[in-house]
Amino acid sequence: MPRIAMVVEYDGSGFCGWQYQPLQRSIQGEISKTLNVVLREYVGLVQSSGRTDAGVHAAGQVISFKVDSATIDCFKLSHSVSSLLRGEVAIIAAGYVPDVFHPRRNVQFKEYCYRVENRKTPLVLSKKYAWHVPEKIDWKLVEHESRFFVGEHDFTTFRAAGHETRNAVRTIYDLAVVSDGCSVEFRIKGTGFLKHMVRIIVGTLIDIGRGKISRSVAQLLLDCDRGRAGITAPPHGLKMSRVRYEDAELRWLG
Amino acid sequence: MPRIAMVVEYDGSGFCGWQYQPLQRSIQGEISKTLNVVLREYVGLVQSSGRTDAGVHAAGQVISFKVDSATIDCFKLSHSVSSLLRGEVAIIAAGYVPDVFHPRRNVQFKEYCYRVENRKTPLVLSKKYAWHVPEKIDWKLVEHESRFFVGEHDFTTFRAAGHETRNAVRTIYDLAVVSDGCSVEFRIKGTGFLKHMVRIIVGTLIDIGRGKISRSVAQLLLDCDRGRAGITAPPHGLKMSRVRYEDAELRWLG
Repeated sequence: MPRIAMVVEYDGSGFCGWQYQPLQRSIQGEISKTLNVVLREYVGLVQSSGRTDAGVHAAGQVISFKVDSATIDCFKLSHSVSSLLRGEVAIIAAGYVPDVFHPRRNVQFKEYCYRVENRKTPLVLSKKYAWHVPEKIDWKLVEHESRFFVGEHDFTTFRAAGHETRNAVRTIYDLAVVSDGCSVEFRIKGTGFLKHMVRIIVGTLIDIGRGKISRSVAQLLLDCDRGRAGITAPPHGLKMSRVRYEDAELRWLG
Repeated sequence: MPRIAMVVEYDGSGFCGWQYQPLQRSIQGEISKTLNVVLREYVGLVQSSGRTDAGVHAAGQVISFKVDSATIDCFKLSHSVSSLLRGEVAIIAAGYVPDVFHPRRNVQFKEYCYRVENRKTPLVLSKKYAWHVPEKIDWKLVEHESRFFVGEHDFTTFRAAGHETRNAVRTIYDLAVVSDGCSVEFRIKGTGFLKHMVRIIVGTLIDIGRGKISRSVAQLLLDCDRGRAGITAPPHGLKMSRVRYEDAELRWLG
């Protein structure tokens, strides 16, 4: 059967998360429903490169689904879906892909961005997309400690307690701390991420920066103990920004 | 009488603009009302460095008002005002200033930022703070033409038709076009701006870039004819970002 892939932007504020939940408003559910209506066929639940938690945003999530026809105008389809989910979901790009494609397979890297606003006064213009941290942060220390995440590690310390997958070994290619005044962005690139992993990494780095944790990241990684890491940073500061595939023909997806 | 100045951030979306209007929700009105309540005295309508139109935001608007006492805790006052106008207005800084201070006088420069998103697909994450322009833009041309605004000019072509002030001569110190992918920011610094001036400048540059206007900015400035300029860019892409005063003691304001 022919298969279509799409790059999707969404505002996670009004959803229970990516994953379909009966009686709740999920991104997976709303996109799948809209595709059924527009295509007038049952496409089932669309696949994605990874679930995002409730409140987490995306600028470049990749999704995929099978269709009956190989001659759908993907531009028109994107336009219709974006219009019906106006303001909350937009299809950035769309096209046919090989029928064996799965958005979670052959990922070269995924990139997440986490935004922190480090100032005493409450947020106004950035309140929906940044975590407000009023305490003084030692940013030099945060930057120094952030480097220890890069590489292949067992991330047991940095995963949600109620996890499913057994293997906690993941590779982080890059973790950049980019600041513009009191606005700081953490840009994390890796093969894949465990549940809450990015949010616990950011929460721990902030807790180290504001003196709530004195253990180093190197020690914490060896501890393999979630209890020693910092808080899970709130979801609204996080954005899945990009998914890159190994296959050169899939480069348009990220 | 003692006088206080404040640096204010606000989201213009829910207001009829800066200026007080009876029976409408203005930023000037809401801040003044809140100060009356918190200070338990009548401070009247607060002054500002300039009015912003309905829908225009601010990250660094400067306001000022007289108070009875010279011993108010400005930090507490800011906190109370920000709390009462939660999410829409935040006081970034506050302190006593000389009683002759007026936020529109002795301004060294004011800075505005205008954000454009130049992409075909609809906006989601930036929709409240950027103008969506789907057409192809010749950004090289836009950058080239933007330089002609810098300097002292008669801005009659670039002011709202229903204006009040007679003299249309203003000085622009700098106009930078900063792009990050399809997101482009116009940063304009000047002594003062006429009604709708920044929005007409941006609208005209975009109209030149998308081929709707073939006249150059140099010609348009000489025309002194609003009819020849481009559209007034929508308000929600605009943000008053900073007001800088000549007096060294007032540097904390911007």
